[in-house]
Amino acid sequence: MSPTQTLAQFVVTHRQRDLPEPVKREATRSLLNWVGCAVGGSRHDTVERALTALGPFSGPRVATVLGRIERLDIMLAALMNGITSHTFDFDDTHLRTVIHPSGPVASAILAVAETQRVTGAEFLHAFVLGVEVCCRIGNAVYPSHYDVGWHITGTAGVFGAAAATGRLLALDERQMTWALGLAATQASGLREMFGTMCKPFHPGNAARNGLLSALLARSNFTSSTQAIEAPRGFANVLATAHRYEEITENLGGTWEILANTYKPFACGIVIHPTIDGCIQLRNEAGLQADSIAGIELEVHPLVLELTGKRTPRTGLEAKFSVYHSAAVAIIDGAAGQQQYSDDRVGDPRVIRLRDAVSATARGDLHEDQARITIRLHDGAVLERFIEHAVGSQARPMSDAALEAKFRGLADGILAPAETERLITLCWNIGGVPDIAEVARAAVPTASVGA
Amino acid sequence: MSPTQTLAQFVVTHRQRDLPEPVKREATRSLLNWVGCAVGGSRHDTVERALTALGPFSGPRVATVLGRIERLDIMLAALMNGITSHTFDFDDTHLRTVIHPSGPVASAILAVAETQRVTGAEFLHAFVLGVEVCCRIGNAVYPSHYDVGWHITGTAGVFGAAAATGRLLALDERQMTWALGLAATQASGLREMFGTMCKPFHPGNAARNGLLSALLARSNFTSSTQAIEAPRGFANVLATAHRYEEITENLGGTWEILANTYKPFACGIVIHPTIDGCIQLRNEAGLQADSIAGIELEVHPLVLELTGKRTPRTGLEAKFSVYHSAAVAIIDGAAGQQQYSDDRVGDPRVIRLRDAVSATARGDLHEDQARITIRLHDGAVLERFIEHAVGSQARPMSDAALEAKFRGLADGILAPAETERLITLCWNIGGVPDIAEVARAAVPTASVGA
Repeated sequence: MSPTQTLAQFVVTHRQRDLPEPVKREATRSLLNWVGCAVGGSRHDTVERALTALGPFSGPRVATVLGRIERLDIMLAALMNGITSHTFDFDDTHLRTVIHPSGPVASAILAVAETQRVTGAEFLHAFVLGVEVCCRIGNAVYPSHYDVGWHITGTAGVFGAAAATGRLLALDERQMTWALGLAATQASGLREMFGTMCKPFHPGNAARNGLLSALLARSNFTSSTQAIEAPRGFANVLATAHRYEEITENLGGTWEILANTYKPFACGIVIHPTIDGCIQLRNEAGLQADSIAGIELEVHPLVLELTGKRTPRTGLEAKFSVYHSAAVAIIDGAAGQQQYSDDRVGDPRVIRLRDAVSATARGDLHEDQARITIRLHDGAVLERFIEHAVGSQARPMSDAALEAKFRGLADGILAPAETERLITLCWNIGGVPDIAEVARAAVPTASVGA
Repeated sequence: MSPTQTLAQFVVTHRQRDLPEPVKREATRSLLNWVGCAVGGSRHDTVERALTALGPFSGPRVATVLGRIERLDIMLAALMNGITSHTFDFDDTHLRTVIHPSGPVASAILAVAETQRVTGAEFLHAFVLGVEVCCRIGNAVYPSHYDVGWHITGTAGVFGAAAATGRLLALDERQMTWALGLAATQASGLREMFGTMCKPFHPGNAARNGLLSALLARSNFTSSTQAIEAPRGFANVLATAHRYEEITENLGGTWEILANTYKPFACGIVIHPTIDGCIQLRNEAGLQADSIAGIELEVHPLVLELTGKRTPRTGLEAKFSVYHSAAVAIIDGAAGQQQYSDDRVGDPRVIRLRDAVSATARGDLHEDQARITIRLHDGAVLERFIEHAVGSQARPMSDAALEAKFRGLADGILAPAETERLITLCWNIGGVPDIAEVARAAVPTASVGA
């Protein structure tokens, strides 16, 4: 059977009870992380502008924009939650393909789940299947597809959104094949857009168009039945090489969601070992910024190439400064979105410590490694070597760390009690009788913070 | 200046009064043809299924679906008119790139024009600019882009829709650049979809997404400012070769709309010389089917390869039968959508005449040529050699022929008086005070025909 039809059959026929426990558990962690990122990004300018532009055209306002009181029609809500959850570049990563899978998949099915009763278990199942589809398609065409210039979260994400939505809409196998075809013919998103609002637009657009694909397929809107592998199909047109066995082999036997990872820090991944080490030293020694004479970093050369900005002027620039990142890690014990605000960048305490940081490129270190040496005014020297940064597959974020990240993201948007309730709901997502409850719990009941 | 910025500046600054008369005239012919195709396709299954699937999610129902009483929000209306106008594969063709430019461009701006007052002259101007943008981008990447497997009406069309809509929304130059960037990162549509409902979906989707691009850009949703030419931009990612001078040279000095062509017959273009010749002989000699003993065709070899179906069973198959086409051309003096209905294919008179047709491949003929010899029962022999088929650039369809095509398409959907009023409005489109009047005139006031 062809890759397209094999995938369609798998998504239509896989049984919820055959989902292994560790798979459900990682899916739950992915969704917790996704909800946190979506709530956290919900007040960003990117989102405000998209809402201003498109809100007036909304159809029936039945679906939630996580973290906001506005409701939208399901296609616009899918778009918006996909945008919010990727705005901080803080969402999950399937490292092998650099796909951020939750944005496209979860945004599409949460919107649909607000129009029909979907249990948490059904939701989790559809989510896992959608992630499986998009990551397997990614595996089949990565890296040539990415190297050509495609933002794979958009191009592969639309398949995942279509498949997961199609499952919730109970498409039959033929309709599911068409849904994948409709997704293939909408696959888009250029890497040229990185650094603009179009980057988070991509997972949102993948969610919106994947949802559209499943809706059209449900009404028997026909498409190709071999959209992935046809001579002029997705794999041949959008990549220079492919391995279809990545799609078809051992379906249901292995699960891509188990390879999902979460960023502990809201900045480029190459700075993560440095931040990790700084936070460890701070917490262990109860470090105060004014006790520090100097911080010396030894890092992989790519760190200085990508993030060597000595004097960042804005929060966005600070995400590309290993110096700022080390400073806030020591002062705040964190490097979440709040540590990359314009305010924090201009804070004299942060600037003072940032200027005490020096960094040396070391070709013998891996990207995942860093050595941090901190000299105190009293002459003491603290040192830490990071072998694998937290958040990597070798050292995944703990549940507690995911929760702390969530709290940091929701701070100022949800009231603390609302945040705790939402966290609890997310951990129990597989057991909630109606997933819409989770969506409702992510809406602030009163204006919080600024 | 870069191709992207050059285009943006051109679209923003070009003055309506600098549009040459022949350009306005060809744009008017294009729009007449587009409205006819949209009305004609409006009852097809493709459209019914899309409406069933997406209609319930419509936002404010302010925009017209040509030929139907349902109204939709502007994004869904743009989608739907793009679908209807390409459903019969009977719309216009920019032959150099095989782009069907009106579907994406006109569908987007007609929807917007129903939310703000737009004069016919402004509409015509925005339309011409949108067609210019999409065809120039097409010229720059054709044929490599098409050869890779992209359906260029979708991928280039989205730029045209964004540009034309952006002009009506009065975007400034920076916003127009972003609109083109948003279009670039949504460019999609695979040739694999030909033969399925996804083919007409492409111009519709280009209209929908081009409109979305302009709306987002108006709210300052940022994008790349070099989306066409960047190393990971549209031209490099979606084509293997490009000529940017096709985009930048002599802008405002030449007009792509002048190279637009219209199909006189609702079938594969290789049959057109045969149909043309049969209709000429019929009309000149007042031919009756039952006076005919035999029809001999000499045609280019491709005709038999692509359209050699001796006994078609359905209307769709009949579009690939030169035999059926010759028969209906003689009997009806036409080969519009109605000559390719299932009913006509099963009509004993058509079958009888079809079986009297023989065809011979002749390598010395061009694709555009055919020789028709008709022998009558009374021994008379009629002969006609077609040098260039009607509808080609060498023999463009006359205004009267465009009108007749329009009537054939609207028959059974609009009442005859409605059709005549709409034709008159289309001819005067440059002078109407509010283009929404044209949209309203394309809505049937009562159920007509079957």
